[in-house]
Amino acid sequence: MGDSRLRVVVVGAGYWGPNLVRNFNLSDDWDVAAVCDLDLERAERLASTTRTAVAVSSIEEALAIDGVDAVAIATPARTHESIALAAVAAGKHVLTEKPLADNVDSGERMVAAAASAGVVLMADHTFCYTPAVLKIADLIAAGELGDITFVDSVRINHGLVQPDVDVFWDLAPHDLSILDFILPGGLRPEGVFAHGGDPLRLGKACVGYLVMQLGDGVVAHVHANWLSPTKIRQLIVGGTRRTLVWDDLNPTQRVSVYDRGIDFITVTEDAERAAAQVSYRYGDTLVPALPEKEALSLMVAEFAAAIREGRAPRTDGHSALRVLNVLDATTRSLEAGSSLVTVDRDTEEIVA
Amino acid sequence: MGDSRLRVVVVGAGYWGPNLVRNFNLSDDWDVAAVCDLDLERAERLASTTRTAVAVSSIEEALAIDGVDAVAIATPARTHESIALAAVAAGKHVLTEKPLADNVDSGERMVAAAASAGVVLMADHTFCYTPAVLKIADLIAAGELGDITFVDSVRINHGLVQPDVDVFWDLAPHDLSILDFILPGGLRPEGVFAHGGDPLRLGKACVGYLVMQLGDGVVAHVHANWLSPTKIRQLIVGGTRRTLVWDDLNPTQRVSVYDRGIDFITVTEDAERAAAQVSYRYGDTLVPALPEKEALSLMVAEFAAAIREGRAPRTDGHSALRVLNVLDATTRSLEAGSSLVTVDRDTEEIVA
Amino acid sequence: MGDSRLRVVVVGAGYWGPNLVRNFNLSDDWDVAAVCDLDLERAERLASTTRTAVAVSSIEEALAIDGVDAVAIATPARTHESIALAAVAAGKHVLTEKPLADNVDSGERMVAAAASAGVVLMADHTFCYTPAVLKIADLIAAGELGDITFVDSVRINHGLVQPDVDVFWDLAPHDLSILDFILPGGLRPEGVFAHGGDPLRLGKACVGYLVMQLGDGVVAHVHANWLSPTKIRQLIVGGTRRTLVWDDLNPTQRVSVYDRGIDFITVTEDAERAAAQVSYRYGDTLVPALPEKEALSLMVAEFAAAIREGRAPRTDGHSALRVLNVLDATTRSLEAGSSLVTVDRDTEEIVA
Amino acid sequence: MGDSRLRVVVVGAGYWGPNLVRNFNLSDDWDVAAVCDLDLERAERLASTTRTAVAVSSIEEALAIDGVDAVAIATPARTHESIALAAVAAGKHVLTEKPLADNVDSGERMVAAAASAGVVLMADHTFCYTPAVLKIADLIAAGELGDITFVDSVRINHGLVQPDVDVFWDLAPHDLSILDFILPGGLRPEGVFAHGGDPLRLGKACVGYLVMQLGDGVVAHVHANWLSPTKIRQLIVGGTRRTLVWDDLNPTQRVSVYDRGIDFITVTEDAERAAAQVSYRYGDTLVPALPEKEALSLMVAEFAAAIREGRAPRTDGHSALRVLNVLDATTRSLEAGSSLVTVDRDTEEIVA
Repeated sequence: MGDSRLRVVVVGAGYWGPNLVRNFNLSDDWDVAAVCDLDLERAERLASTTRTAVAVSSIEEALAIDGVDAVAIATPARTHESIALAAVAAGKHVLTEKPLADNVDSGERMVAAAASAGVVLMADHTFCYTPAVLKIADLIAAGELGDITFVDSVRINHGLVQPDVDVFWDLAPHDLSILDFILPGGLRPEGVFAHGGDPLRLGKACVGYLVMQLGDGVVAHVHANWLSPTKIRQLIVGGTRRTLVWDDLNPTQRVSVYDRGIDFITVTEDAERAAAQVSYRYGDTLVPALPEKEALSLMVAEFAAAIREGRAPRTDGHSALRVLNVLDATTRSLEAGSSLVTVDRDTEEIVA
Repeated sequence: MGDSRLRVVVVGAGYWGPNLVRNFNLSDDWDVAAVCDLDLERAERLASTTRTAVAVSSIEEALAIDGVDAVAIATPARTHESIALAAVAAGKHVLTEKPLADNVDSGERMVAAAASAGVVLMADHTFCYTPAVLKIADLIAAGELGDITFVDSVRINHGLVQPDVDVFWDLAPHDLSILDFILPGGLRPEGVFAHGGDPLRLGKACVGYLVMQLGDGVVAHVHANWLSPTKIRQLIVGGTRRTLVWDDLNPTQRVSVYDRGIDFITVTEDAERAAAQVSYRYGDTLVPALPEKEALSLMVAEFAAAIREGRAPRTDGHSALRVLNVLDATTRSLEAGSSLVTVDRDTEEIVA
Repeated sequence: MGDSRLRVVVVGAGYWGPNLVRNFNLSDDWDVAAVCDLDLERAERLASTTRTAVAVSSIEEALAIDGVDAVAIATPARTHESIALAAVAAGKHVLTEKPLADNVDSGERMVAAAASAGVVLMADHTFCYTPAVLKIADLIAAGELGDITFVDSVRINHGLVQPDVDVFWDLAPHDLSILDFILPGGLRPEGVFAHGGDPLRLGKACVGYLVMQLGDGVVAHVHANWLSPTKIRQLIVGGTRRTLVWDDLNPTQRVSVYDRGIDFITVTEDAERAAAQVSYRYGDTLVPALPEKEALSLMVAEFAAAIREGRAPRTDGHSALRVLNVLDATTRSLEAGSSLVTVDRDTEEIVA
Repeated sequence: MGDSRLRVVVVGAGYWGPNLVRNFNLSDDWDVAAVCDLDLERAERLASTTRTAVAVSSIEEALAIDGVDAVAIATPARTHESIALAAVAAGKHVLTEKPLADNVDSGERMVAAAASAGVVLMADHTFCYTPAVLKIADLIAAGELGDITFVDSVRINHGLVQPDVDVFWDLAPHDLSILDFILPGGLRPEGVFAHGGDPLRLGKACVGYLVMQLGDGVVAHVHANWLSPTKIRQLIVGGTRRTLVWDDLNPTQRVSVYDRGIDFITVTEDAERAAAQVSYRYGDTLVPALPEKEALSLMVAEFAAAIREGRAPRTDGHSALRVLNVLDATTRSLEAGSSLVTVDRDTEEIVA
């Protein structure tokens, strides 16, 4: 098994497809069997950069190629379902760009189909495979932060106003997939509020604030913004033992772990006196060394490992569906005047 | 007039009183007539640092001193009303530490009383008199930013959990008073949402997010947080012409004005096509030189000027009442499960 | 002329060659006629990434290809002279990676040969074609800084100890080529001191300080260091009108122009009183917008333009020779116990 | 002993004296017996801020006060010797502002006199008592950095041109006293080079570079500059085990300890191959928590402890003399055209 490479078809030769092709092509686990794009010339140009790929212009042709194990989808979100269902029907494992689909129903059908067919369905939540996020997930899983007290994520930049989606659907999938990856048990908010600013009167939010109630008084908050002159990508994860800051734009110090926590002896009913019972620790700050690895190379390796080991990948269809559910909730909250909405569906129940 | 100093009594010799005393004492406009504190020894120690002050232990004694023009109140918020009303009744001008009072009714009575008596009522919104905020207010008033598109304010730090107030009442008065100062027309949100995190189960918000709808799709947002390991004090004001960032912790570059704006030719009904009509400018960034002046010295000068010129000060009672109204709204929103609440009272109508 | 592309042979398919090949291949000015490398397989792999190139394994084969206009040399410095002289003898224009050669005599022969043959000799001083350095050169040329008062360049990092060169020859060519590019009249120090640290006893400097006397009391200083845990790439250019800082590792604010200068009315003989006559201005800071362009694409365009217009390129052989002369001076100063050495040769006189 | 305070006279009520007075006055170890200044009114104003001090206008009056234990000198450097010798002759312990004196001969006489009289002579090297420098000294003493490989100190700012001293004598005493404090064995360079820039033709260096050969190939370098638009105060101490950066202007992360060192198996004669034998470690970075303490309060406590315990203080006269010797060497090197000069005198031998 170790000496035979898996064969993948990459669908979509536009913005993201070339990144997938490059990483599959460099991987010892993979050969790119084909690049598929409606624009055959574009597919050919991309295929020519690989050792092994041919170019095709339809998913049917792609699936007809001999010995294909998997299909990687890098097309617009509204096309994911049909391509994925065709691939699953042909018994192929599937990797999709984020978001999983452009609506929850589609996403659920994709997850159910993959489960029925016994194939791997994985989401390309690229940020989850960066050395920084992998380290954060490890630290939290090892209990280094204690119980999580709050999560604050900021992703703002002077970005292009997207024609078809608002700022939540454009930027927040990154934050949400990261939160799903690092939070013990995944991202399962009890309630969601979304607040949107539309100062240019474009009919969609350009400035977005997302509040997720995680239970036990813990709030996760995301600020997504297309109109900021400064670029900030910062995640703070508060904990009872330690607190962590990820500054993705500081290459020499991406992750800082502050040994500043809160000790308190007893929690009484007497809120007036609670302050006296809270004391702070100001300890050292640790900046863990991170390996220099490209996230996408780790992602394609995880896809191969999941297929070979017959297990769910770290960012599987259920994870992608949890992200999609929260995105859907933002839209419902906005439509309801920023009211509280719940995320009802239990994604684990879809197949059962 | 220029050669006669005004005489002020400073009430409260605790945390903030010494700062007021020092600045009144250094000012050419003022003599400190007395320091008043229930703890007479504390009052005496503080009075001894001045050229002119005596120490007294009651407001009645203070008001009985000959030739007192004004009373500056640096006591807990719940005591502001009674001291202020006594001072106003004695015909004195009044300066209060923020917030104006611990509830809106008290604040309204203070504003009405001062108006009836024809004395100046000023709030010590110190941040408004920093060179940075004065510059920001000037830039906005001069139209340098164009129309405001969003406002985002972050004030987070590892702070002490306060025994009597939540994180909104502790930290947000700074942000709100600044917004009231720089926004054309002051801070008059159409609606307010407050979201609080209470992960330590102390019965009050330690992590706070405040959303204010300013009308026309413009949102102002405040993040106030006692549990953050990193200290951030950053204000972003987006505009159609330029956008501005104030980083109060960067002494060499507090204010940056980005010549990055949004140009768009026509706004059509067709939201799908709107993106094509939005174009960005990426121009230079300007870091304006700021004078090195202490905010409190400018504040006490403004108090003197308002008294002498018989005009409202820049941070007058109405301004303080607008801030108080929003704080009150945060509490009402929290009590209503983070629902939208309105800020009904028109503070300008109180006196009429 | 505009519709016919120039044809270049790239010699050396190792570390830097692929960057040249990629940029020549993307340029409208150039076709890559051939990639030349002793390792033919490596040449073939690189050639296959272009539209037009064949692979050859000797410079003789390369020069025999029909219609070649220019040779770009990306081989070790000790091989530059023989390749360049062969190319010049064949009437080809030449581009060399920095440094021009591994010794001054070789460099002078290259410059003289190119001058005799009437072909362009250009050095690939890549940093000079970054938007930041181009802007700095423009600002200085326009007199925005006034007279230059000092230059301080820091280029430190945890870098690999090189087997064949010391830290001056490894890192300082960057600083020196930049200084030659931005200083009016080029880099022509009156005297040079070099100080080297060799704490690991490797027989070569791992920590280097270079002092260049530019005349009139102006000093340029370079700190080059392989042993620093922090990476710093910062250039400060002081001026009588304004002062400039280039921080190459701050992508959002690479160049800052401080309107802080020194005004003084008269310079007297009385040094004791001179201080009183110096006054400072503290004006705004300007962060000029810089275009997002790849330096190498501008460099190959300049090479083409110089050839077509029959003029010297901005980083010509004389410029490269001035850099080489200072590097040679560092070695001589180190050998003489960090004594002052002069840079005698007038590089403009070589051809005459 | 613990219940009796020492009594100190502070001489000089100008720029620095008030800081000393404030800290002596706040200390449990000290009473300020008198403030002495030629300007008696200025002395009186300063004395009035203390619990205990009288004002006098001559050193004779000061020394005649009953029960004075020590004299703290905060006057210009050229006056230190006469005041210190008078105090020592009267059997008083002496603290002097830096530099110890304005010339080495004076400094040596002061050290010798104090030794003969058996009194403490201490230098107010304030930076050495900051929590950051104390931590750095501890880390080095504990061997955490291994052997020191290089030291680089930068202290640049837009500073006032001083009328009587050059930039070395104005700024470098800070760097030199810190180096003397943290280097095992103190600052004892084998040789010194100084390079000065005088672009304004003021007859003195405004831009200074100082190279100190510490032996075994280790170089310490100081960059002192009055003309820089950016303020930098950064010290890098390289070590074979770890490397340390102190950024005094980053209050949230002053000291960073990088676990990046150099491992190498054997050092051969073959420099060509040495690189292969050097390998790097990239470990975590630690930001040690530092207590919030004022340096001057620790300094006056050390002065008291040295007197009471009959021992030399951490920054004693010998330390101050080593600093003075290097300053003297900078002047001699500058006068000799930046030649190498030695620091001959063995300061420990003065008394013997």
